[in-house]
Amino acid sequence: MSATLGSELERLGAVALVALGGEGGDPDLAAFAGAAKLGEAFVVAPRGGAPRLAFLTPMERDEAAATGLALLAPETLDVARLTREHTEPGALLAAWLAEALRWSGVAPGRVALAGSWPAGALVAAAGELERAGWSFVSGNEAMRRARKRKRPGEVEEILRVTGAVAEAMRAVAGLLAAATLRPGGELALEGEPLRVARLKREVALIFAGHGLSQPRSNIVAPGEEGGVPHSAGTPERILRAGESLIVDLFPKGTLFSDATRTFCVGSPPEPLARAHADARAALDQAHRLTRAGATGWELQEATCKLLGARGWPTQVSHPGTLTGYVHGLGHGVGYELHELPSFRKGAGEDGLLEAGDVVTIEPGLYEPGPSGFGVRLEDVVHLGPDGAENLTPWPYDLDPRAWPRG
Amino acid sequence: MSATLGSELERLGAVALVALGGEGGDPDLAAFAGAAKLGEAFVVAPRGGAPRLAFLTPMERDEAAATGLALLAPETLDVARLTREHTEPGALLAAWLAEALRWSGVAPGRVALAGSWPAGALVAAAGELERAGWSFVSGNEAMRRARKRKRPGEVEEILRVTGAVAEAMRAVAGLLAAATLRPGGELALEGEPLRVARLKREVALIFAGHGLSQPRSNIVAPGEEGGVPHSAGTPERILRAGESLIVDLFPKGTLFSDATRTFCVGSPPEPLARAHADARAALDQAHRLTRAGATGWELQEATCKLLGARGWPTQVSHPGTLTGYVHGLGHGVGYELHELPSFRKGAGEDGLLEAGDVVTIEPGLYEPGPSGFGVRLEDVVHLGPDGAENLTPWPYDLDPRAWPRG
Repeated sequence: MSATLGSELERLGAVALVALGGEGGDPDLAAFAGAAKLGEAFVVAPRGGAPRLAFLTPMERDEAAATGLALLAPETLDVARLTREHTEPGALLAAWLAEALRWSGVAPGRVALAGSWPAGALVAAAGELERAGWSFVSGNEAMRRARKRKRPGEVEEILRVTGAVAEAMRAVAGLLAAATLRPGGELALEGEPLRVARLKREVALIFAGHGLSQPRSNIVAPGEEGGVPHSAGTPERILRAGESLIVDLFPKGTLFSDATRTFCVGSPPEPLARAHADARAALDQAHRLTRAGATGWELQEATCKLLGARGWPTQVSHPGTLTGYVHGLGHGVGYELHELPSFRKGAGEDGLLEAGDVVTIEPGLYEPGPSGFGVRLEDVVHLGPDGAENLTPWPYDLDPRAWPRG
Repeated sequence: MSATLGSELERLGAVALVALGGEGGDPDLAAFAGAAKLGEAFVVAPRGGAPRLAFLTPMERDEAAATGLALLAPETLDVARLTREHTEPGALLAAWLAEALRWSGVAPGRVALAGSWPAGALVAAAGELERAGWSFVSGNEAMRRARKRKRPGEVEEILRVTGAVAEAMRAVAGLLAAATLRPGGELALEGEPLRVARLKREVALIFAGHGLSQPRSNIVAPGEEGGVPHSAGTPERILRAGESLIVDLFPKGTLFSDATRTFCVGSPPEPLARAHADARAALDQAHRLTRAGATGWELQEATCKLLGARGWPTQVSHPGTLTGYVHGLGHGVGYELHELPSFRKGAGEDGLLEAGDVVTIEPGLYEPGPSGFGVRLEDVVHLGPDGAENLTPWPYDLDPRAWPRG
């Protein structure tokens, strides 16, 4: 990470990077501080120097020390005094940053700002520091680049999280396979109607057992709800035979994983079966094309070509379409759910797949409306030293019985 | 909320508030959008007008519509064109904000910025908009004030989350009560050493079953680890008889709850028993003083007085002390884990307890060092229409057997 960061800072003409993290944490900060549980905190990384972690309260000293970073402790920066002297949050942040930069041996100049912070205080602090001779350039993109290729420990964590997703997906398939059919087509389990909430609860319990959170929730979207890619699924919704069910899980340990399968209990209607076969063909092709040296946009174009030839509207043939293939093919995954490499058009070097990247590939097909449906199949691929490795070689079938019982 | 917000905007001389939320969400945005799962999004609230929600992708249209807010859809703001025209994230944000403000009928002027956003893009966007005639003032404090007094639905959600904390605390007490003692003092359960991880797993499973997340993790800190208030607890650490165990749980549904108990299996050493009795006395006094019209700092001073009289160093007698009573008495709780009212000195009107507030009161006593310990007892209090109500009237005992078995 540090080599990429160094060259990014040089390119930006910045003397240092500051990565801010408010109470809720931040992926740029996490790339330095890992799993440490801190309140407001930031890292100062002088160009070519070692990063230092500033935190707000001595109560967090053990959490901070466990990061292994050099520390700018509250006592060192005299945060107690700064807090007394600066009642406005923006002024306090400005003073805290100035003190931390001074202790890091960074003289006033151009600083790359990464991480995130409450908007009002940040803009006020930047204004104040500008009047004191500092200037700012965005360092969020530099950090996204520095976070792109994963270190071994990061890949290991994504593998661990992916293992939990496999377990959750198998459990969902098991519940669906065990469901009985009621007259009228509703599914039931243990004498109760089978609802979205039941599957979400099972998933949550499994992730909890692995110490994972779901900061972005998850998607368990049946039928018409799955016809809109980002609908999370209504908990009370009772599942039905013959409809699609998109299960898209993206829990987080220190890093995220993200995989999707689509199920159908009973015989799928022909349009759903066809959409599933087409998405599967697109996924197979994407696996063949996912390798270091390719770009995300090349893969997206190839996917649009394949699906277009099979009669689906795509983002290339019908920009903005809500029917057919309506989204990008994939994304990097890591400290953020969506990170580099990018699969967008014109992403330039940020779209280049490189050794060390971890990406998802997720072709999907959608028919919105009251009797609509959705299909999405999403794998996670690590571009490892021996080439691309599919981290999610699980059943792709609509039929949940294709999954081995747990 | 809207009345407070309106008067805050008037005080700031702002024509509108913008509450930003990046991929990870934001409490200021959640106060408008509730539980909606959105990626990058923001709300524009013109002074005296209805708030409107801007979101980035049509894939989120159903999630956005479920908020009940007026929408600034990506099609309306032509986000596709803006994305093509502005490749830098800061420039894109500036264009998106300008378009949304225009559609909301807000002419260039002073805008209060709330929520949070990636730091680099935000500072760049603010600079760009300033050159176009806008100016910015922090709206984070205005939103914190607008979020202070809870609406009925918000209190209901805090009650729901608090119920899950009760269940988790009872489960932890049950595991501790069922533990057996090994020669040397280590606790065991079902033939295995009883570790912090076992308790954390039980807690996580219970919260998962209620659909709650733990975005700030939790604290299960035995003995010397509990001697530092914010140490989360090392999973591998084996629990021992006769030591303190701080269990501080703060899960989140749409809002947080936050409660703490301290346990000791077997006979507590005298210093621990005394610290527990003193913390208990401080909690009882805090309950008597927690009422609308009081200030957080008055309660903190009274707590320092009581604990000081019992021989403990406090933040008043020994500012910066790491032994004794080392932190504030409490905090408001809501969309953020720590919000208004404030218990800090000089908090002014932000320290005033008012009807509708939900606060924690959490006296604690700490002895840091290798043979140290910690005690903390934390209740949640709602200042309701009929006065203060303790939402956590649970056992306070060190002995886990005081809890009814589940």
